Amino acid sequence: MFESAEIDHEIPKSEYEAMVDELRARLLEAQRTLLEQSKQAVLVVIAGVDGGGKGETVQLINSWLDPRQVRTVAFGDPSDEERDRPPLWRYWRMLPPKGKVGIFFDSWYTAPLAGRAYGDWGQAQFDRAVERASRFERMLANEGFVLLKLWFHLAKSQQRKRLRELEKDKLTRWRVTKEDWDHFENHDRLTECATRALRLSSTDFAPWIVVPGHDERYRSVVVARGLLDAMCNDDVVEAPSETAMHPVATVDGKNVLSTLDHSQSLDKDEYRRELARWQGKLAKLVRRPAFAKRSLVVVFEGMDAAGKGGAIRRFAAALDPRLYELVPIAAPTDEERARPYLWRFWRHLPRRGKAVVFDRSWYGRVLVERVEGFCTTRDWMRAYSEINDFEEQMAEHGAVVVKLWLQIDADEQLRRFRDREEEVTKRWKIGPEDWRNRDKWPQYEAAVADMVDRTSTELAPWTLVAANDKNHARVTVLRTICERLEAALEDDA
Amino acid sequence: MFESAEIDHEIPKSEYEAMVDELRARLLEAQRTLLEQSKQAVLVVIAGVDGGGKGETVQLINSWLDPRQVRTVAFGDPSDEERDRPPLWRYWRMLPPKGKVGIFFDSWYTAPLAGRAYGDWGQAQFDRAVERASRFERMLANEGFVLLKLWFHLAKSQQRKRLRELEKDKLTRWRVTKEDWDHFENHDRLTECATRALRLSSTDFAPWIVVPGHDERYRSVVVARGLLDAMCNDDVVEAPSETAMHPVATVDGKNVLSTLDHSQSLDKDEYRRELARWQGKLAKLVRRPAFAKRSLVVVFEGMDAAGKGGAIRRFAAALDPRLYELVPIAAPTDEERARPYLWRFWRHLPRRGKAVVFDRSWYGRVLVERVEGFCTTRDWMRAYSEINDFEEQMAEHGAVVVKLWLQIDADEQLRRFRDREEEVTKRWKIGPEDWRNRDKWPQYEAAVADMVDRTSTELAPWTLVAANDKNHARVTVLRTICERLEAALEDDA
Repeated sequence: MFESAEIDHEIPKSEYEAMVDELRARLLEAQRTLLEQSKQAVLVVIAGVDGGGKGETVQLINSWLDPRQVRTVAFGDPSDEERDRPPLWRYWRMLPPKGKVGIFFDSWYTAPLAGRAYGDWGQAQFDRAVERASRFERMLANEGFVLLKLWFHLAKSQQRKRLRELEKDKLTRWRVTKEDWDHFENHDRLTECATRALRLSSTDFAPWIVVPGHDERYRSVVVARGLLDAMCNDDVVEAPSETAMHPVATVDGKNVLSTLDHSQSLDKDEYRRELARWQGKLAKLVRRPAFAKRSLVVVFEGMDAAGKGGAIRRFAAALDPRLYELVPIAAPTDEERARPYLWRFWRHLPRRGKAVVFDRSWYGRVLVERVEGFCTTRDWMRAYSEINDFEEQMAEHGAVVVKLWLQIDADEQLRRFRDREEEVTKRWKIGPEDWRNRDKWPQYEAAVADMVDRTSTELAPWTLVAANDKNHARVTVLRTICERLEAALEDDA
Repeated sequence: MFESAEIDHEIPKSEYEAMVDELRARLLEAQRTLLEQSKQAVLVVIAGVDGGGKGETVQLINSWLDPRQVRTVAFGDPSDEERDRPPLWRYWRMLPPKGKVGIFFDSWYTAPLAGRAYGDWGQAQFDRAVERASRFERMLANEGFVLLKLWFHLAKSQQRKRLRELEKDKLTRWRVTKEDWDHFENHDRLTECATRALRLSSTDFAPWIVVPGHDERYRSVVVARGLLDAMCNDDVVEAPSETAMHPVATVDGKNVLSTLDHSQSLDKDEYRRELARWQGKLAKLVRRPAFAKRSLVVVFEGMDAAGKGGAIRRFAAALDPRLYELVPIAAPTDEERARPYLWRFWRHLPRRGKAVVFDRSWYGRVLVERVEGFCTTRDWMRAYSEINDFEEQMAEHGAVVVKLWLQIDADEQLRRFRDREEEVTKRWKIGPEDWRNRDKWPQYEAAVADMVDRTSTELAPWTLVAANDKNHARVTVLRTICERLEAALEDDA
């Protein structure tokens, strides 16, 4: 993996200056094009051994490019706000928008490498983290990111020489810490882990580039060329739709929605009793000390007029408003549009001890966007696994993820639409769009069925709620949330 | 202040229900109008004694309104990211956009009241904090916020009764903490401080509403009416321009820019030596342990083609890219446009131990927006004090605020414009807008002179840099930053 990088590469100074002059001009040109088109973002990931020139190189890139369109982020120790969310949250929040260049010092490889090389991570844990990193990168690539992953390498003898040089110079002595020498002692171990990480995560969409760290000029030219390639990479894959398979449609017309039992109902007295019971239960559950280490993410989806709003109100009424946030999903803002589609949901993930309720959610991708053709088949087909990855990260970090689909039948929807049109105070709730969506009922049903089949997982199962009877639906929603939450908290005990 | 609130107010249940039904319908209507117009935001500030019904009321508001357009924020203890910025930062970051309702549990009154009533804050410190809160609110009001400040009051005997009631009920017992009883012991002291705070910060644009806390129904109606008033308050003050004074123009044609000495210059050797000297100095200063408790905010402004970009590069080249962020100010995003104009700068304030460089800044308000008429005279006239308040908060929190104006004379600008037009690699840097701005040279000079006079303060002085000679300008920039930073760090020692 590092064979070529240990050769004594060198570029004479005169040659170097001519090369860099030309590269700089082309880099600036490429950067301007990147910004003008604003279709892609370039993300440079910096990793490698100490003394390999990481800091110098980033400084150099910043001096070559228009630094106003570059955002360099050094992550360091996570803040408490970051520790309260899944590990990738800190990287998500700093993703550059399309048109810009991001440079990440430290990345999703930092923790696995440190854990395996210097800590107590097992092989499986390490492999899994690297695999997850790779899945994250595939999503980024699909969402318009060009990834330039740079590994700065030094052979052990080169690293010793380099650290000694730095120590000798009065101006650079401060940069060599005890930790660097500890890392040096572990050089072979780190290299071994890195070899594996690079092998597992070098892909067509995000290959690693090994940068020989010992010669400054050679190193700089390698990076400049890599960067230029990345910035000029404008073949955003417009995959032909044939490459994406559709899910197989139901053959006998039956699906999880059509087989839902709508006969259940609650009369007024039962409803009041049950509602109070589960609201009380919920209020108590979130006060349990164990919840301070958990969080709650509730997703409400459903057919138009299925009663999401009413169900959310009954849920919210049980909670101290200091504990939860309600996030209605409307059209994305321009900051959101410039980033991967999951970004606008990641940014709302709750801290530990808190709840977030999404009124509509990331499932828009495989529902309305699929049915209305707002994205390609390939986009919504890949969304299933991206969403599963997203929810897996939440669940593993302690979030209880409850996903509720509120279903009414077509007749009930018609009744409610008409009711809305007739009542003055409800008229604003209905418009031509609702009628248009209704015409696509079968397509929406098919999309929902596929969504349930592909994203109802052991970590984040879907609950389908028969909602023709509002009382029954509201109580079912509350009961489901309570039961999921209680099970999780009991697990912790 | 609290006389009316201690009367035994009461509303019979039957009457209450009729009132609330009507109020709810009107609230929903008002909320819809608020959202449709998206000209204003409503911010409800919740304060007052424990047991006064704060939590219940917020829950009620959420149940009355469409909760999707309401954001409730309970601040609690600051996170480490919040502690690293001025105290108001946590409130700024949570400001709702226009069209929405925000409910703030805890606010900029929490710290002063706790400090004065239970801590060791002196009268002057308290008054000053309240005064600052009021200035913040005036800014918010001017930027389209309607502020509803609710103080929940209970007489001491009422509070005792209330806490005991809560303790008796199995379902509410958990809500009464030892802290509540401690606060109860301090009831008179808190009331005394609150009286003063309410007096000092009750203004025409943000009056306090005292809510009698002991009767739930009466309390709820008072809040509902207050909220309805706030939401229907559509007289966004379009002040006649006469109410805003212009600064007095210079009489003899002299100003701080025209009297700037452009004779200074550095030859190539001097430049190299001086540049290396100050870059080295800067690199060392930010490595001093004392800097970990400080931060650095550098503002670059200047005439077009004055050389901001080049100066920023020389500054950045001295710094570890992990330590600073460069923020170029371009057109605001839609999330930014929906909030007060300073919001997009607040969001970039650095953590302790870090630097942020603004390439153009909040001074756009009193420069381009003034000259081009993008805002009213009243808007840019009030900006001077809003900006001073902003910078005062940064400086008091330990930020070293360095503001640099790079000035070239008109002949030099013409030379540089022509040069840009001629050179292929620089042509993108010049467009018709630059020539249009140039035609307004005298207006810009006047705006700059006023800006310097009104915002060069002891905490955040302006440095005017004669920039006809680029070498001289770049070294002056670096030297200024170093000297300011060094003085601050020596102060700490």
